[in-house]
Amino acid sequence: MTQAVRHDSMRARNLGVVLGEVRRSGPVTRAALAEMTGLTKTTVSKMVADLLAAGMVAETGVPSRGERGRPGTAVALSGGRVAALGLEINVDYLSACVVDLTLAVRLRRAQAVDNRTASPVETLSHLCELAREAVDEARAAGLVIAGSVLAVPGPVDDGLVHNAPNLGWRDVHVGELLSGPPGGLPAPSPSPTVDNEANLAALGELWFGSGHRDFLHVSGEIGVGAGLVVGGALFRGAHGLAGELGHVVVFPDGPACRCGGRGCLEQYAGQEALLRAAGADTVEQLTGRLRDGDAAALAACERAGHALGLALTSAVHLFDPGTIVLGGVFAPLFPWIRGPVRATTAARLSAIRAAVPDLAVSRLGGDAAVLGAAGQVIHRIVADPVAHLPAR
Amino acid sequence: MTQAVRHDSMRARNLGVVLGEVRRSGPVTRAALAEMTGLTKTTVSKMVADLLAAGMVAETGVPSRGERGRPGTAVALSGGRVAALGLEINVDYLSACVVDLTLAVRLRRAQAVDNRTASPVETLSHLCELAREAVDEARAAGLVIAGSVLAVPGPVDDGLVHNAPNLGWRDVHVGELLSGPPGGLPAPSPSPTVDNEANLAALGELWFGSGHRDFLHVSGEIGVGAGLVVGGALFRGAHGLAGELGHVVVFPDGPACRCGGRGCLEQYAGQEALLRAAGADTVEQLTGRLRDGDAAALAACERAGHALGLALTSAVHLFDPGTIVLGGVFAPLFPWIRGPVRATTAARLSAIRAAVPDLAVSRLGGDAAVLGAAGQVIHRIVADPVAHLPAR
Repeated sequence: MTQAVRHDSMRARNLGVVLGEVRRSGPVTRAALAEMTGLTKTTVSKMVADLLAAGMVAETGVPSRGERGRPGTAVALSGGRVAALGLEINVDYLSACVVDLTLAVRLRRAQAVDNRTASPVETLSHLCELAREAVDEARAAGLVIAGSVLAVPGPVDDGLVHNAPNLGWRDVHVGELLSGPPGGLPAPSPSPTVDNEANLAALGELWFGSGHRDFLHVSGEIGVGAGLVVGGALFRGAHGLAGELGHVVVFPDGPACRCGGRGCLEQYAGQEALLRAAGADTVEQLTGRLRDGDAAALAACERAGHALGLALTSAVHLFDPGTIVLGGVFAPLFPWIRGPVRATTAARLSAIRAAVPDLAVSRLGGDAAVLGAAGQVIHRIVADPVAHLPAR
Repeated sequence: MTQAVRHDSMRARNLGVVLGEVRRSGPVTRAALAEMTGLTKTTVSKMVADLLAAGMVAETGVPSRGERGRPGTAVALSGGRVAALGLEINVDYLSACVVDLTLAVRLRRAQAVDNRTASPVETLSHLCELAREAVDEARAAGLVIAGSVLAVPGPVDDGLVHNAPNLGWRDVHVGELLSGPPGGLPAPSPSPTVDNEANLAALGELWFGSGHRDFLHVSGEIGVGAGLVVGGALFRGAHGLAGELGHVVVFPDGPACRCGGRGCLEQYAGQEALLRAAGADTVEQLTGRLRDGDAAALAACERAGHALGLALTSAVHLFDPGTIVLGGVFAPLFPWIRGPVRATTAARLSAIRAAVPDLAVSRLGGDAAVLGAAGQVIHRIVADPVAHLPAR
């Protein structure tokens, strides 16, 4: 290793340490940062100067309370410049959001569109349009989009969606399609990385939700996915394909599922199955009828809740999660679905488990995945800020 | 922190670093250990002297090949003194083993006994007898038992078995019962810590088995449990109760299970359910009939394999494991159960997953848990040897 390379990697590490400490403890003085990180005051001052120049931190002038030593100007994370773009393709909508370095949500856009009747290229082209609008608006507000993550409703392996049956996608190389011409789409710069919707929704709940650090987040859309968070970290499995709650077998001889199986949870508690059973066209119509006490709507929720309770019984036995957080369309349906879910899980779990996991509702609903997508960019920047600093 | 305390904790850390490196790289010279660990040669020599005195390492006289610098006497882990006791209570047997620091199995004892008709105190008293015999025999061979872990067929929380329905145990404080008089049993010294059989079986497969680092180990006994290993680490969930594959719901309206649920996997693929369906009394009798092509025996395996395939389909969707390793009674039954398991999982997984996990058989069979129990002690000693050194 040359001296220069070693110096650069040490600077990169120290920048990450200082920015991480500012996030945890800010507003905080340089002197306190030196004490907390074990770095010299000279090193801390250099790192803070670089972070100030990059617009990642700002001086607040207000020293934090209870601090030892002489008072100094404090620094805190700045939401003024560096930001992230979150994108989502789902079966019946597209969405985008911009989140700044303090995790404040600066902008949200959603568009109802049936992506099953469109080709992957058409869908991605619509998405790029939505993304460019969001980026333009963010730039007008003085923000610089430092990165982007795209949530898709299916398992993702290095930018490849092998099979997203609810979208009708098979072997779609989203990463390649979005890598720009020739052959690709004029994607927003920087080009997004791709991840699974249910994983990102769980991370959205972790970073923007109720503050739990151990939970199973259930993402109810036309597909049903889940993301397990243990001690603040997402469990991904051996190939990044964990958490496919929607294909847990509920009734082995039940109706055929688009995944190739039979009697999967999605056939009972997926958004389409639920609406069909209730004879409703939209989730809004369904909740309206539920509020009116409509018998078919209530029976549909009872049936979906029972199936969800069965799948969650299996998931609790395998995952042993903390709280269970119901998100996506299960959030607006929570008042009606909670009862049957709880009845089924309690009947099957309470004799053998000292504690049946609590059932909570996500405050983010259908926004969890797109927020998690943007949040993942911010967490990468804070962990390794050097890649996002102006060249010296 | 006083100077003395700081010095002791640094010595403890350095001993662990040196012993860990000897395990990974031994036989290895002191000079090479200094280079690998970044410790001074003086420090390494002191640590090695302490480890030699404790009988944890031994001089081999053979310097390892390809080593830089002057040749010296090499040291390697020693199997001659420090050893661990593994214990297991299962529904229809008790077992014990002794494993030395090199993970060589020095002794195994098993005893067929129906622990359902005995009280917890009677069962533990039998176990203590078996343990004392094993300890005596190990001592006669010059070994010192440095610690002990006990595997039990149910979820364990800090020595408490809340509910092991197959044993008929409810709220049994195994830890307290084994902590010695007054009130306790005359347990072998040191008193064992308690862990779940399926977790320990997965660790047994990791340390004594086929060398996989990513797998789901299925422990088929009268109860069916599983342990997920990801990147060489056991996944335990939020309360250490993960992996209860036996209570994954297979047919929701199926027969009542001792856990309080209905149609759990155990009702179809547990050892008793299997033997009952086959009209056999023992696993040996069942495998004999299978070899003879007995129709009832083959049908029972087909049915159990289908149910296991359904539960594994759900487990693959949730866990996304590497290989699936079938152990316990599924090991001798593997030739007959593999087909139906693979047919069911392939039919339900191959369209949506790029790769369906391989199905492998454990070479350890019913010994995995008791070996994992002893192995856990050895891994604790190697990670923190200072507690097991003679006082200075």
